[in-house]
Amino acid sequence: MPINRIINCQTQDNIGKEVKVAGWVNIRRDHGQIIFIDLRDRSGILQVVCQASLVEGVKDEDVLEIEGLVKERPSRMVNPNLITGKVELEAKEVRVLARAQTLPFTLKDLNVSLPVLLDWRALTLRNEKIKNVFKVQEALADEFRKSARELDCTEIFVPTISASATEGGAEVFKVDYYSHPAYLTQSPQLYKQMMVPVFERVYTISHAYRSEPSVTTRHLSESIQLDCEFGFADFKELLDLMEKVGTNMFKAAESECPLILKEYGAEKISYGEIPRLTLRAAQEIIYREEGRDVRKEKDLSPEDEIDICKWALKEKGSDFVTITHFPTQKRAFYTMPDPENPVFSLSYDLLFRGMEICSGSQRINNYDQLVSTIKERGMNPGDFEMYLQSFKFGMPPEGGFSFGLERMTKNILNLGNVREASLFPRDMERIDLKLAELKKKEEEKPKKKKSISQKK
Amino acid sequence: MPINRIINCQTQDNIGKEVKVAGWVNIRRDHGQIIFIDLRDRSGILQVVCQASLVEGVKDEDVLEIEGLVKERPSRMVNPNLITGKVELEAKEVRVLARAQTLPFTLKDLNVSLPVLLDWRALTLRNEKIKNVFKVQEALADEFRKSARELDCTEIFVPTISASATEGGAEVFKVDYYSHPAYLTQSPQLYKQMMVPVFERVYTISHAYRSEPSVTTRHLSESIQLDCEFGFADFKELLDLMEKVGTNMFKAAESECPLILKEYGAEKISYGEIPRLTLRAAQEIIYREEGRDVRKEKDLSPEDEIDICKWALKEKGSDFVTITHFPTQKRAFYTMPDPENPVFSLSYDLLFRGMEICSGSQRINNYDQLVSTIKERGMNPGDFEMYLQSFKFGMPPEGGFSFGLERMTKNILNLGNVREASLFPRDMERIDLKLAELKKKEEEKPKKKKSISQKK
Repeated sequence: MPINRIINCQTQDNIGKEVKVAGWVNIRRDHGQIIFIDLRDRSGILQVVCQASLVEGVKDEDVLEIEGLVKERPSRMVNPNLITGKVELEAKEVRVLARAQTLPFTLKDLNVSLPVLLDWRALTLRNEKIKNVFKVQEALADEFRKSARELDCTEIFVPTISASATEGGAEVFKVDYYSHPAYLTQSPQLYKQMMVPVFERVYTISHAYRSEPSVTTRHLSESIQLDCEFGFADFKELLDLMEKVGTNMFKAAESECPLILKEYGAEKISYGEIPRLTLRAAQEIIYREEGRDVRKEKDLSPEDEIDICKWALKEKGSDFVTITHFPTQKRAFYTMPDPENPVFSLSYDLLFRGMEICSGSQRINNYDQLVSTIKERGMNPGDFEMYLQSFKFGMPPEGGFSFGLERMTKNILNLGNVREASLFPRDMERIDLKLAELKKKEEEKPKKKKSISQKK
Repeated sequence: MPINRIINCQTQDNIGKEVKVAGWVNIRRDHGQIIFIDLRDRSGILQVVCQASLVEGVKDEDVLEIEGLVKERPSRMVNPNLITGKVELEAKEVRVLARAQTLPFTLKDLNVSLPVLLDWRALTLRNEKIKNVFKVQEALADEFRKSARELDCTEIFVPTISASATEGGAEVFKVDYYSHPAYLTQSPQLYKQMMVPVFERVYTISHAYRSEPSVTTRHLSESIQLDCEFGFADFKELLDLMEKVGTNMFKAAESECPLILKEYGAEKISYGEIPRLTLRAAQEIIYREEGRDVRKEKDLSPEDEIDICKWALKEKGSDFVTITHFPTQKRAFYTMPDPENPVFSLSYDLLFRGMEICSGSQRINNYDQLVSTIKERGMNPGDFEMYLQSFKFGMPPEGGFSFGLERMTKNILNLGNVREASLFPRDMERIDLKLAELKKKEEEKPKKKKSISQKK
């Protein structure tokens, strides 16, 4: 009778039994007539001992189905770093389910440049350490949802195709929508606000698109945003909520992926009381501590973010800093100016280890004020008709925030580039392949067609 | 000392106490000097009794903050349909947080046509019954994730901007990507397959875009798909997995939203053993039962789907039917032909109450076969370079499926149109507003600019 496949980690509970496993050849090691195969499946790696004749021609990344006997390893051979480290499988039968072509590089101990990493993305993601980036990402996203639900937020699904540029900026991707001009949303911002009078508190995980014509280590053209919006919340509560959700996410990643964080050399996060500084106060600190005078700048530069986080860790024992009161003109039109000094706004960013990972604000909730602000910014209220409907018929004081999933992943793991924290990063140079390469392919196509038609 | 706001449902635990609540005027009823306000917040509705002078000029949808005394209702006044039905609030102080303009229609007992429902979408969603559609949707999505996780799937986030048309069809939206042509993905299909050699089992909730130039009650131009993909799964297992996840989702909606389903007149779902029929067998049944000869058709029509579901409920006590073995040529290129008869494929749809809600297949996992198939379909393997990378280096037998979130929501609630199951539906006639209206607005804009420049 054929036996059912078990996954690698279940071998521990089947010592002395015949089992069937399946997976990829993570690495093949030859010891004369005995071949060791590290077989990889979703649960981890299992050491399989094979007679050479059973695995003739079997190479790294081939897909195998193996039947064999689970044996306990002698205590001196136990591998504590392997989930199946107490056992090994003695192969009786090996079936090749799929062959792999010769690899362009060894996947184990992969050490390639970023362009190579991305050119071979479908392959390099198989590397254990690289794959693990996305296990951390999963833990962050999952805790975001859990935290939002505990705060009584309803999950909403909002569209990404919009009739006008969400935030009024120029950096939007244009879509041909049944011959009408349309745009990819820069964020779920307007829609989540519109859902406040419906659900009062909402959350959404959505795609955000920015056509930013610059290459940095911190920007993506398509990214994943984790958004919350709260009705009847004042400025202070919004800060509390943002900090709570953010720290919850990092705590979950630490508690669910301790080995991965260790593998990446990530230090334990310091959750001291989070300092809350206005932009101007932060700039004063930077001036005092670093001697750089940025006190008139309208925003923090990447260098400023690093410096103020350094200060927060040293002085307050916190890997986080909350910065508030950015100049009103530097923030999106829906941001509430501070009634006490409208030049600055009731806006905030959460920084973590030298980088902004979250941004938000209290919003303008009065219809007339919102319409005036749209006009003052040189935009047309008619382009926001559906959005304004929500404000016309009773919008309470409200606000929210938005986390960048890739940035959080990058920073908790000390990755050098945010692209490493996106499965298939989009930027101005690449859609999986380099745009230049795609263009070359396109140009080659008509030629082919021509040569066919010439044959006729 | 100012008191903190509680939410409406907490009033029950505060009988005899002074509390503060906040929300929208769901309805105002005047009884001479006494005014009843039904105050709506995220937890439900609370009856507030006010002296007329306290709420002068207060209208439906105004946003109020009210302080008052929680009183137990006399037993004959208890309202069992209200979560706060045992209490009412005697208002002491009423503060208007935001005014609503006069409503274009009454939100209570809303009865408007679909175009009006969508023209006023930000407003009509406030109606309790309409809002509740999305509470059911949330329950479905949440159970999808729970079920996928229990099946050991890793959550992945995949891009929606692609360099080529995902499934080879013409119905794609074109994006101007830094002056390069790009497309919105028709599904996360190719990316989830590519993640099989990485995580073995994956799931993702993603946006799917279809530029279908037709208006039906079942299609959207942007929709939410719930996708799973499994390595090392054979055809029979894939059917088991699809049916398990699908029925889990409906069971969760029934157990979490019983009152909403009742409100919509939804009958209890029958979860008898799900019949599995090949397309041809289903067509035979339709011929036998209904006398319609569709036995040579390449797919089921909407009418066929209704008829076969009728049969399944009557004969098998199941609101579901699984249809398998669609013609290979009618399915996407990556679909595995049935080795026993390659004219038909190892594909499947799950039908629920007369409509397809899920689709999937075993996939071609052999690299050479996949390349040949792409060529046979008149496509260029070069356009699938990153996708093919996954197959070049060892892809096990695999398959998966994809649920349509809006369709499931529509069908469990007996909605007449899938647009009612999308917060902000996109179709060929509308992006929030009607495209014709948006066009008119655009045309009016340049005129304005002209008149300004003429002034100079």
